[in-house]
Amino acid sequence: MTVEKISSLQNPRVKQLVKLRDRRPRDEAGVFLIEGFREIRRALEKRVPLRELYYAPEWFLGENEPALIAQAEAAGAQLFELTKSAFAKVAYRERPDGLLAVAPQWKRTLQDLDKIVAGSGGPGRPGSTTPATTSAVGAGAPDLQRAPFILVVEAIEKPGNLGTILRSADAAGCDAVIVCDPVTDIFNPNVVRASTGVLFSVPLVVAESAPVLAWLRAQGVRTIATTPAAEKLYTDADLRGPLAIVMGSEQYGLSEFWLKNCDLPVRIPMAGQADSLNVAMATIITLFEAVRQRAW
Amino acid sequence: MTVEKISSLQNPRVKQLVKLRDRRPRDEAGVFLIEGFREIRRALEKRVPLRELYYAPEWFLGENEPALIAQAEAAGAQLFELTKSAFAKVAYRERPDGLLAVAPQWKRTLQDLDKIVAGSGGPGRPGSTTPATTSAVGAGAPDLQRAPFILVVEAIEKPGNLGTILRSADAAGCDAVIVCDPVTDIFNPNVVRASTGVLFSVPLVVAESAPVLAWLRAQGVRTIATTPAAEKLYTDADLRGPLAIVMGSEQYGLSEFWLKNCDLPVRIPMAGQADSLNVAMATIITLFEAVRQRAW
Repeated sequence: MTVEKISSLQNPRVKQLVKLRDRRPRDEAGVFLIEGFREIRRALEKRVPLRELYYAPEWFLGENEPALIAQAEAAGAQLFELTKSAFAKVAYRERPDGLLAVAPQWKRTLQDLDKIVAGSGGPGRPGSTTPATTSAVGAGAPDLQRAPFILVVEAIEKPGNLGTILRSADAAGCDAVIVCDPVTDIFNPNVVRASTGVLFSVPLVVAESAPVLAWLRAQGVRTIATTPAAEKLYTDADLRGPLAIVMGSEQYGLSEFWLKNCDLPVRIPMAGQADSLNVAMATIITLFEAVRQRAW
Repeated sequence: MTVEKISSLQNPRVKQLVKLRDRRPRDEAGVFLIEGFREIRRALEKRVPLRELYYAPEWFLGENEPALIAQAEAAGAQLFELTKSAFAKVAYRERPDGLLAVAPQWKRTLQDLDKIVAGSGGPGRPGSTTPATTSAVGAGAPDLQRAPFILVVEAIEKPGNLGTILRSADAAGCDAVIVCDPVTDIFNPNVVRASTGVLFSVPLVVAESAPVLAWLRAQGVRTIATTPAAEKLYTDADLRGPLAIVMGSEQYGLSEFWLKNCDLPVRIPMAGQADSLNVAMATIITLFEAVRQRAW
């Protein structure tokens, strides 16, 4: 291995890594940060093309780090070894484990999802073993013999919630997640962390609400939106067939646009405090009711 | 109002508040911390007898703080006004809002829940307007015409998860939550915060697993435990009637004790990464399937 060593806190790379916590420098550079053993391992599994890998042995927690570093290098990542203090500066976690990678951002459009709703083949998900190319990280279109199952979230504010929602969509077997009118950058370090790497596998599109609705309608996908104002319970709605579940933001719920244009508003019954269900909890409840019905 | 003013970071009360973040001093003093406007308002609503209220106007975010302070004083709390820097020291939140209360801990036993499973009246929940006494904070036994619905969690490690689980139990209308073999103190400040005050309303008992099982059996409550190893899907199990849903810990899942002794193990189907569902997510999925079935 040819490894550059970094000890100075003034090193330009150290300064740049700190900057990449913020969106503008991230977008300007077209990259994002992946911190932590588990997340980097998942990124490698999903063939995310890591450009750089920064590591600091003094922070390692286990014994598998050298193998992971070798794997990253074999996949083309440039390596940098940092001193303990230099790594402490670049880490954004409270308890760093000595591993931080930089990878290129990607962008996927609604048209990239066409194959999903058309069920027109392509590498399967989950469990696909087909290598993804750089431009198609996590974009493998499911080889669907079944109706598409999509999650649409609107203007989610907290990165932790967006990450948790991605995990839920993954667990429920959603074919894609569409983030409308984003407030949170999907490449925010806390989305990466909270998603536990699902960001690298679930096909994810960021788009405005109007074209998303138009696209869903063109594909014949029904839209079911959850709102406390609905009459119908989510368990009384038919959640089979081509389906998009639409969730609003933490603070404002669904926008007028989705309330007016969705095919069916539904509500989740609430027994306790008005705010006992946050958006991540409401999402997983609705997704798994759909899973139940769709297994029939 | 007679208000003691505190500006010194060396003030013994300031030092004690910092200590109360840790369990041992908390248990020795028999009190716990409630930080934040929303949480303190909920504590007052649920008649938690606040002993002390510390506030720092320089941190206030809105205009309703004086009314809340007056309400706390009227309810018997001793008031202390802190300077900005003194409050920064006692606050455990990253972004304090200038309000921190101290309240006595309470303890509830399995026997306190007898009324719940017996359905023998008492103030109703939710929406009870009957004042609770000091010793009965949140203990109002539901006026059940229906079968008891209980959540049992085993050895949950993360305070944030325990708080989220309490919210879920509240939203699902559970009659009680039983924490077995606790690793996390229910009065940990992060449980208080993550529960958004549900800690003050849902009847909560901490006990060892063996007596919990014996008590549930004596009351004729069926135990359904979730584990990835189960054959039966949670949606195929009958979740009506007297029911306890049992959830294991984050890291180890359910113990042998519950796996062996529960009436029925069930599993949640998983489409994605093995760890996409954490214990809080698995709990809310199972609880709301029970809500669906029990509404029949």
